[in-house]
Amino acid sequence: MREALAEFFGTALLIVFGVGVVAQTVLSGGSQGSPLAINLCWGLAVILAVYASAGVSGAHLNPAVTLALALRRGFPWARVGPYVVAQMLGAFVGAAVVYVTYREAFGAFDGGVRQVLGAKGTAGIFATYPAAYLSTLGGFVDQVVGTALLVAMVFAISDERNAPPAASLAPVFVGLTVMAIGMGFGANAGYAINPARDFGPRLFTAVAGWGGGVFTAANGWWWVPIIAPCVGAVVGGTAYDLCIRAHHPAITNRIGDPLQRAEAKDQLR
Amino acid sequence: MREALAEFFGTALLIVFGVGVVAQTVLSGGSQGSPLAINLCWGLAVILAVYASAGVSGAHLNPAVTLALALRRGFPWARVGPYVVAQMLGAFVGAAVVYVTYREAFGAFDGGVRQVLGAKGTAGIFATYPAAYLSTLGGFVDQVVGTALLVAMVFAISDERNAPPAASLAPVFVGLTVMAIGMGFGANAGYAINPARDFGPRLFTAVAGWGGGVFTAANGWWWVPIIAPCVGAVVGGTAYDLCIRAHHPAITNRIGDPLQRAEAKDQLR
Amino acid sequence: MREALAEFFGTALLIVFGVGVVAQTVLSGGSQGSPLAINLCWGLAVILAVYASAGVSGAHLNPAVTLALALRRGFPWARVGPYVVAQMLGAFVGAAVVYVTYREAFGAFDGGVRQVLGAKGTAGIFATYPAAYLSTLGGFVDQVVGTALLVAMVFAISDERNAPPAASLAPVFVGLTVMAIGMGFGANAGYAINPARDFGPRLFTAVAGWGGGVFTAANGWWWVPIIAPCVGAVVGGTAYDLCIRAHHPAITNRIGDPLQRAEAKDQLR
Amino acid sequence: MREALAEFFGTALLIVFGVGVVAQTVLSGGSQGSPLAINLCWGLAVILAVYASAGVSGAHLNPAVTLALALRRGFPWARVGPYVVAQMLGAFVGAAVVYVTYREAFGAFDGGVRQVLGAKGTAGIFATYPAAYLSTLGGFVDQVVGTALLVAMVFAISDERNAPPAASLAPVFVGLTVMAIGMGFGANAGYAINPARDFGPRLFTAVAGWGGGVFTAANGWWWVPIIAPCVGAVVGGTAYDLCIRAHHPAITNRIGDPLQRAEAKDQLR
Repeated sequence: MREALAEFFGTALLIVFGVGVVAQTVLSGGSQGSPLAINLCWGLAVILAVYASAGVSGAHLNPAVTLALALRRGFPWARVGPYVVAQMLGAFVGAAVVYVTYREAFGAFDGGVRQVLGAKGTAGIFATYPAAYLSTLGGFVDQVVGTALLVAMVFAISDERNAPPAASLAPVFVGLTVMAIGMGFGANAGYAINPARDFGPRLFTAVAGWGGGVFTAANGWWWVPIIAPCVGAVVGGTAYDLCIRAHHPAITNRIGDPLQRAEAKDQLR
Repeated sequence: MREALAEFFGTALLIVFGVGVVAQTVLSGGSQGSPLAINLCWGLAVILAVYASAGVSGAHLNPAVTLALALRRGFPWARVGPYVVAQMLGAFVGAAVVYVTYREAFGAFDGGVRQVLGAKGTAGIFATYPAAYLSTLGGFVDQVVGTALLVAMVFAISDERNAPPAASLAPVFVGLTVMAIGMGFGANAGYAINPARDFGPRLFTAVAGWGGGVFTAANGWWWVPIIAPCVGAVVGGTAYDLCIRAHHPAITNRIGDPLQRAEAKDQLR
Repeated sequence: MREALAEFFGTALLIVFGVGVVAQTVLSGGSQGSPLAINLCWGLAVILAVYASAGVSGAHLNPAVTLALALRRGFPWARVGPYVVAQMLGAFVGAAVVYVTYREAFGAFDGGVRQVLGAKGTAGIFATYPAAYLSTLGGFVDQVVGTALLVAMVFAISDERNAPPAASLAPVFVGLTVMAIGMGFGANAGYAINPARDFGPRLFTAVAGWGGGVFTAANGWWWVPIIAPCVGAVVGGTAYDLCIRAHHPAITNRIGDPLQRAEAKDQLR
Repeated sequence: MREALAEFFGTALLIVFGVGVVAQTVLSGGSQGSPLAINLCWGLAVILAVYASAGVSGAHLNPAVTLALALRRGFPWARVGPYVVAQMLGAFVGAAVVYVTYREAFGAFDGGVRQVLGAKGTAGIFATYPAAYLSTLGGFVDQVVGTALLVAMVFAISDERNAPPAASLAPVFVGLTVMAIGMGFGANAGYAINPARDFGPRLFTAVAGWGGGVFTAANGWWWVPIIAPCVGAVVGGTAYDLCIRAHHPAITNRIGDPLQRAEAKDQLR
């Protein structure tokens, strides 16, 4: 419960900062933001949200990450459900905080008529929508690749037998990973790479005035940033483990001092 | 006294760097700055100003932070007054340093006629003014949210039972928090989120040639970035404590080694 | 073999992130990227890719760096071949990942007709091409200077008798070096400064639809970013050693405690 | 001698990276750079150059810093001369490296006719020139303020009785200081804040084809970024010491453990 609350709080912060910068950029007509600012601030959002919750819950903040940790790092399956629910709720509440803060700006931007897409559309502030050229299959691939990059780096940064940064700085590098994914893999479909980040705010828009169009838009795009990141997380984690972790020297040769015993125990979990 | 001097010095540096970048951006007509540069440099301003004073005064540099620390972290109430006065004075002096440095640039920009708002208005270099669409209530909410984010992160970064960065790097993450707030929550009203940051420079403009309009503008906006951040600081600190800190394992179970005793003592203060 | 796999994996990640941001910028017509984003993201690409492989292979990820380490730091010559092959393969595969992810975006951009140069040319997303004004000699100098800067900084950052950052943070500073080279020395010829980074993706474009023009373009430019970086790496490493490392106090005077003995041993390798 | 060589090498690197980004921005007509890129890259230039030399010479890389350290931190006066000469030579050589690398780009930009100022002027790539509105007195104030900020922060970051970052990360924060000064105090006169950074490259332009105009331009501006930074460095260092350092608890009360004795000794030097 305590961990679920931390996931809720961290994911809410993630969405408040991340959706906030998109809101600022879109609602100011680009005069107070830019694609670069969006990428930088999403990275910062991850850094800050992870620090806000890592000591309690490990700061997954992303159902796809939770799934990959359950499949490949022994995260208890019994906690997956509560974590995912907490992440979804946090994302929903985070979206609401942004909406309340920018309520008057929305009105000034669209005259009070909420639209999903188009020149005055603002649903893209909250959830992701694919580029016009993108097929559902292309979008699925995009989300698999983006999330695979995220999880491969999460695994690298936390692999004590590689050369990771100090654990107390790990959140920084998770954030930089998301920053880089946004700069390099955001053009197709806005780099959701996180089912909670996408579904929570999308659900908020559905109930807060944008209507059911947020689910029907782009051929019913909404399920892609939920399913594909889960696939990508497993792909990325497996790729890291196959290329790097599986080839670490056998642990049995290294048991000796306490640190190594701790590593071994961590491995066996 | 020594601590008040450090708060004075740190807040002056904060304003010199922070107001400096707005001056450079506005007075160069955007050719030497941009909204992104302003956000980045305000973040740097926080990082640098905190390092300049943290070892002496704790580097609050913000009356709302001082208030939150008094209410929720046992910062002595007797010091709140001196801290706030020092912060206000520092902000005033910082504004004066920027003005002196850019004196000729102001003249080249507005022909020597100081104006508060409008195309040649420059009061917005020093203090914040709300967007045209924003009501006072909407601005109040904006400042509450922005400051709540700041203080929640300050509490997270300094919570030794969460997973904070090394204390010697904490100033970096406070700065990154302000950077993110500027990118995501600056469009409504310029993210003062600090009564000293706003009032000190505003007072400077009132006496340095812009006149009383800096207090009457936008329906007498000036008190909002003083009162609302104080509310927001308490909201943000309380939110962090309710979601995270209140659920840390009971300290009595953890007393054992010196580090844990120190933590416990810190908790009981 | 284990090390070659890590070089493969790390170089693939480097190219995925680095070529990804150029793809996003070019294919979006600049609406989702910019020269600054490219520079920042290449720096991030280096940081992330080095963390992903440093603990296993040392994360050279660049044949020119491998060469310099063999010539001046005792890296075993027998491993140079496998490292370079792995780097080339990794870069090729990284390019393929970007292509697959952006396949539909390429079609939307060029109508399905792959062109090397020109307004709809996209070969420059993968490999570097010189500015119109640049001679081959000028390009050679450019690549020597860029790579010399890279290797001089790699040597500085890893010189324990200078004042380096913590080893666990060294990847950050290698990445910042590449970021700075991109900002300052990218205008002539796109700062390949890495034979694998350039040749692997170029070979990919040759076989994936751009054809042999990628080798004939710009007077057969393709060999310059292979040969010149190797020269530059040696120049830069030698410059650092002559100006800094050669003048460290004689090691024989400093042998005493274990750390110094370790340093001495490292020196004698 | 060994230290002078390190100052030479570090200052050359500083100028190579710092002048490089201005060259890239100007010579590409802004298509490969921007004011923000210039500010960011100058910050990186400082970070990298300091790491390249700090372990040997302390990485002053700036005669004004050397002067402030001699006046207020006991840096031996006998070494001031050699340091300054080495810094000047390094800056000259750094400018030459940039020129050689971009030789053909200069030709493409100005048709081979070197001009100091104007639309095709390129002397501003190497040394600083004031804005049209700026008087010599205004420029003097500008350079005093900018350098005071730099040295106050250098003193803060290295003050072990404040709350500095780890010494191995200090170069990062010196670089961030220069980044912030560039963003906030670059509009008047290009933030030389370093006599070597300005005079070395200016001398290079005088002998490399731009002629004596680099000294006569702007009412003989050239001496301002030499003299004023020296004044500013002393002002900034003194301000820090008066506001912060002078009020640290008396050392005699704190002598007890080895760390405090070391601090005390450092203080008495």
